[in-house]
Amino acid sequence: MASSFGERLRVSVYGESHGNGIGALIDGLPAGEAVDTDALARFMQRRQGGRAGTTARREPDIPEFVSGVTDGRTNGFPLCIRIANTNTRSSDYNNLADTPRPSHADYAAHVKWLGQADMRGGGHFSGRLTAPLCAAGGIAKQILARRGVHVGAHILSVANVQDDRFPMLVEPWFFDNIAARAVPVIDAEAGEQMQREIMNAAADSDSVGGRIECMITGLPAGLGDPMFDGIENRIARAVFGIPAVKGLEFGGGFTLCTLRGSAANDPLTVDKNGVIMTVSNHSGGIQGGITNGMPVVFTVGLKPTPSIAQPQQSVSLSARTETQLEIHGRHDPCIVVRAVPVVEAVAALVALDTLLIGNPQ
Amino acid sequence: MASSFGERLRVSVYGESHGNGIGALIDGLPAGEAVDTDALARFMQRRQGGRAGTTARREPDIPEFVSGVTDGRTNGFPLCIRIANTNTRSSDYNNLADTPRPSHADYAAHVKWLGQADMRGGGHFSGRLTAPLCAAGGIAKQILARRGVHVGAHILSVANVQDDRFPMLVEPWFFDNIAARAVPVIDAEAGEQMQREIMNAAADSDSVGGRIECMITGLPAGLGDPMFDGIENRIARAVFGIPAVKGLEFGGGFTLCTLRGSAANDPLTVDKNGVIMTVSNHSGGIQGGITNGMPVVFTVGLKPTPSIAQPQQSVSLSARTETQLEIHGRHDPCIVVRAVPVVEAVAALVALDTLLIGNPQ
Amino acid sequence: MASSFGERLRVSVYGESHGNGIGALIDGLPAGEAVDTDALARFMQRRQGGRAGTTARREPDIPEFVSGVTDGRTNGFPLCIRIANTNTRSSDYNNLADTPRPSHADYAAHVKWLGQADMRGGGHFSGRLTAPLCAAGGIAKQILARRGVHVGAHILSVANVQDDRFPMLVEPWFFDNIAARAVPVIDAEAGEQMQREIMNAAADSDSVGGRIECMITGLPAGLGDPMFDGIENRIARAVFGIPAVKGLEFGGGFTLCTLRGSAANDPLTVDKNGVIMTVSNHSGGIQGGITNGMPVVFTVGLKPTPSIAQPQQSVSLSARTETQLEIHGRHDPCIVVRAVPVVEAVAALVALDTLLIGNPQ
Amino acid sequence: MASSFGERLRVSVYGESHGNGIGALIDGLPAGEAVDTDALARFMQRRQGGRAGTTARREPDIPEFVSGVTDGRTNGFPLCIRIANTNTRSSDYNNLADTPRPSHADYAAHVKWLGQADMRGGGHFSGRLTAPLCAAGGIAKQILARRGVHVGAHILSVANVQDDRFPMLVEPWFFDNIAARAVPVIDAEAGEQMQREIMNAAADSDSVGGRIECMITGLPAGLGDPMFDGIENRIARAVFGIPAVKGLEFGGGFTLCTLRGSAANDPLTVDKNGVIMTVSNHSGGIQGGITNGMPVVFTVGLKPTPSIAQPQQSVSLSARTETQLEIHGRHDPCIVVRAVPVVEAVAALVALDTLLIGNPQ
Repeated sequence: MASSFGERLRVSVYGESHGNGIGALIDGLPAGEAVDTDALARFMQRRQGGRAGTTARREPDIPEFVSGVTDGRTNGFPLCIRIANTNTRSSDYNNLADTPRPSHADYAAHVKWLGQADMRGGGHFSGRLTAPLCAAGGIAKQILARRGVHVGAHILSVANVQDDRFPMLVEPWFFDNIAARAVPVIDAEAGEQMQREIMNAAADSDSVGGRIECMITGLPAGLGDPMFDGIENRIARAVFGIPAVKGLEFGGGFTLCTLRGSAANDPLTVDKNGVIMTVSNHSGGIQGGITNGMPVVFTVGLKPTPSIAQPQQSVSLSARTETQLEIHGRHDPCIVVRAVPVVEAVAALVALDTLLIGNPQ
Repeated sequence: MASSFGERLRVSVYGESHGNGIGALIDGLPAGEAVDTDALARFMQRRQGGRAGTTARREPDIPEFVSGVTDGRTNGFPLCIRIANTNTRSSDYNNLADTPRPSHADYAAHVKWLGQADMRGGGHFSGRLTAPLCAAGGIAKQILARRGVHVGAHILSVANVQDDRFPMLVEPWFFDNIAARAVPVIDAEAGEQMQREIMNAAADSDSVGGRIECMITGLPAGLGDPMFDGIENRIARAVFGIPAVKGLEFGGGFTLCTLRGSAANDPLTVDKNGVIMTVSNHSGGIQGGITNGMPVVFTVGLKPTPSIAQPQQSVSLSARTETQLEIHGRHDPCIVVRAVPVVEAVAALVALDTLLIGNPQ
Repeated sequence: MASSFGERLRVSVYGESHGNGIGALIDGLPAGEAVDTDALARFMQRRQGGRAGTTARREPDIPEFVSGVTDGRTNGFPLCIRIANTNTRSSDYNNLADTPRPSHADYAAHVKWLGQADMRGGGHFSGRLTAPLCAAGGIAKQILARRGVHVGAHILSVANVQDDRFPMLVEPWFFDNIAARAVPVIDAEAGEQMQREIMNAAADSDSVGGRIECMITGLPAGLGDPMFDGIENRIARAVFGIPAVKGLEFGGGFTLCTLRGSAANDPLTVDKNGVIMTVSNHSGGIQGGITNGMPVVFTVGLKPTPSIAQPQQSVSLSARTETQLEIHGRHDPCIVVRAVPVVEAVAALVALDTLLIGNPQ
Repeated sequence: MASSFGERLRVSVYGESHGNGIGALIDGLPAGEAVDTDALARFMQRRQGGRAGTTARREPDIPEFVSGVTDGRTNGFPLCIRIANTNTRSSDYNNLADTPRPSHADYAAHVKWLGQADMRGGGHFSGRLTAPLCAAGGIAKQILARRGVHVGAHILSVANVQDDRFPMLVEPWFFDNIAARAVPVIDAEAGEQMQREIMNAAADSDSVGGRIECMITGLPAGLGDPMFDGIENRIARAVFGIPAVKGLEFGGGFTLCTLRGSAANDPLTVDKNGVIMTVSNHSGGIQGGITNGMPVVFTVGLKPTPSIAQPQQSVSLSARTETQLEIHGRHDPCIVVRAVPVVEAVAALVALDTLLIGNPQ
């Protein structure tokens, strides 16, 4: 099932940019869990357009619970979320049916679905589909928090502007502080520089990419499975479902490739409560695919928004000739800002699934 | 199923470093495909120990076909590969039962399996398990080649020594040339420098990490599925099953995060045969999870071998105190050299699965 | 994922009897397929309440396509169906929270979800969930018909009243004729007797069970996979998801258990076009899990509706004592009549999935 | 993956009748579980040929543990079982390559694998493949017994000879007594009649079918998932993987189709320990797909062995003409006797998987 992931907690996403609605179906949530819709709305607002450097398309994106919730609590059955599509301007996309946008799914989708896919606004590949993903992940975050598991993320870089990395150990308030900022970063000054970088790109009818660092705290050691079903594999499968993600690394990631083992290894230690920990966390909380009790840390790389207002070289699918393309419509010059809660959402869903699978022995 | 991956072509890996044998079970291979055992042996030899900078443990690793092959051809049924474990020195691991090796799966596995896992030599997490993975992938490579699909890989870097990147379009002989080298690189001089880097690390009782670039050519456009079952997701799930992999990027990967859209986008063009192509391949042949007909390109980052001969800080699981650990046994100072065919194997298995799934319409 | 089935065509069902709505999510439909909503409405009407011997709860059950359909055609993306719940009388269920209905899911669900499931009207276990299943299956039937595959079913028995069995080979009009009848049977007289049987049971505040025979024609030989993913396994997994199904047999089924091999075997023959067929079809079109080109035939057994108006012995969950239970509300004295299109729907979905998986070689 | 089933406990079966070996791969077994090889050998002996009414092909079928077992205990990693094929007489099958045996997989497999499958002795469809299934299930039975879950089965009928049904509640010794008999039945006299029935069929160069009733005791209430992943669905998917199975019913099964609700429903009661039970068990321990704490009961129908020594009508695949077929080789006149432990094995594997999945809340 292409548009779903997870084992015990299974999330499916549906909808197209310019269809009646979009949504998510979540199967496997524990029953009796309160869903705080205000907190959920605040979480979803973090991925909303309308802020500086984001698209002018702004929709309320209030998730309706079609099923799975009774009197404000999960009722044990599949939770269907539906979000209306209210603000679509299909005319913006009239010229795209025959002229695929470079580095979009347009051409690949044209071949795959023999020209029959509804690709207006990117169709099912649209960034709008991350709204129901956030709704699902926001619910997972609430359930995780009650079990002592917290998920946070921040922009690690935009273009060449760098934020600080997460410290090795983080309390939940640290995540909250980041989330409260217009640009979710640790170093506020870096955030301002990022905004300038984004505005400059917009002024040039261009876009920029960036990286997001995400952390999951509170997962007990011993979760996950070896080889192809480790925590890394589970996160990887889900994270590459977020539009524009082209890279993923865990803990020290690619930096470890330049280090020697003596520097990359995480020495073990025992804290005052007798809990075994590591002194550093280059492993990102995962060894052999299995949690070791340290925070799970990963970094995601997003390419710049491929939709830019500059004329670009494309082709006419019907004529099989080169042609110039001008993309109209409303597009983020930098998707990274809005992608932060999306990464958190995906991380939360994988973490909750992992908790529910547990460690069957 | 933790130790397996794939949908129509499903590969399961079994065995422990110090058990009776290791192997793989491959379900879903097309029937009637010749298995060239000589070519397979040559492919598997590429991951063999015994060369400069690799472990002294050397085993013939001749795969036996327990099932699935009749008269040298696949017979339509699950192909079970078995490789004997002949060269184990368990005494090397006597001190490890109570003292987990830093940045190994030892501690996480101890918690998960309540101390009951057979972790001698790394158990099921051992790099030895990549031998059956190579056997499976080597067979997939032979089948793919008959269908015009080719897979190659090279070391992109060791520590800070860089090889050239693959050119955008590559013929099969290019892959063969790389594979024929002692150090599989494009720039032979870089290969020699890498070897020196590895020897230096070994001399210091240390290890180094590195990166591998892999390419799949010949896949038609329109394969893969959106969101969570795209080619990136399929490769990601499998690649993070290779021991020591901590990072993965497609096409331009993390480099794209620093670029503007105008530089990162792949303009479209039409070749002289009317085939639609892209002028650059920053997307790594995948857009929206679906192949666009260009070569699929990804880069994998491997951390330095965590087993090093230097004393390291660990803990006693029983006493819950810190302790010094000295690891004996035979270990590669750089796993990257031997991991090149493993990455190819995994890529080939995912590519063949993708071909078999096809594009159901 | 509990509430979904299928591999390439994946159907998920959501909703509770007394929630906001119910529906289905269908991932993997081919693109560009026309959806005839009139034909779909006619198909869905076949499972509607309001006819003699069925519940008084009558809802229009018009499926809304939230996604996946553009301009009356499938658009390649997950098709989300939503059906409103308009006619719920929760007060009927007030006494059931503490007193599980015999042979309903009430008690098992109470234990599983720790009393937190919304079991009003049977919750997610309600027969109402077969409406979206029919919507999904009705679309599959339309697509199958264009590919020469047809699905039909009839009531084989109610209580001890027997209908004729399908002839070995059946044309589509034969299915249509059955479907047009108030009681979908081959032998109209048997249908009238069945209605009397049902009315008698209703008059006694009781219910009756029955059997449904289903046939899929036009599937080519060579589809399906051996052992645990054969056509039988695929149908079985799906069919036991229909409420009240307690038995399933293929072809001759349990009757074969009393026969000798010489009588049970299907001799092979060649028709005038050189097509290999069997002289009889005791195998139900499936041998070794794989289609042999003959019609796929299976029979489903449904228990009598467990909701009856007679007082029954139950327990108080809180008091842990026996108690008498009287069930109010509107219930079918015989679910078999309405289950006929549901069985067709499930068969059609499995058949289309099987066609889409194809025979990868 | 065609030849595997299960979610957390995943069993894959491999091998062909006339290949090097057959076996099973079991992923997900709990670690530290003792494997009693003597008890396992005794269990496997129950499906051995060589007794009256079974094939003359007799092989020791001693399972070798290639991986997954260390010092007699499961070690947390995939357990690979291998059984040698020592007693093959391929010449018996020479005439079958072009002449499919009626009601065997021969013709369907010929089409599916384009004539490339190794169908000697039935290939991967052979009843021999149930040996590794028994090995896997025998290990599961041992683990289940330590957790208070027991699995037993008996022949319910051969041709028209009926055994008694299981009483509603059964102690483990009852299963043991049945298993100790040459013909595993409750009513010894019925067993003798069955043997005569089988011998008569053999004397006529014919075969007979029959039914097996299986029971799982000790499963707690609240396991399983609604709709398509209930206990019934899980058992169904696995059971139809046993060669010759053509029917399956749970609890009262098809008998319930003739009953009224008032007779079919299982009234609830409370035992002296305050445990909620049902007075009858027509539901077979499953309601809405979920265990209710009563024994899980199901009945399997097996068709007569299709291989009979009588001449039969078949076709020549190459000539596309009808032809007479005479099957040589060694075949059971009644597979039902040997299938009893196979059904137990499959039931045990599903039960253990269900326990390991648990009830995530």
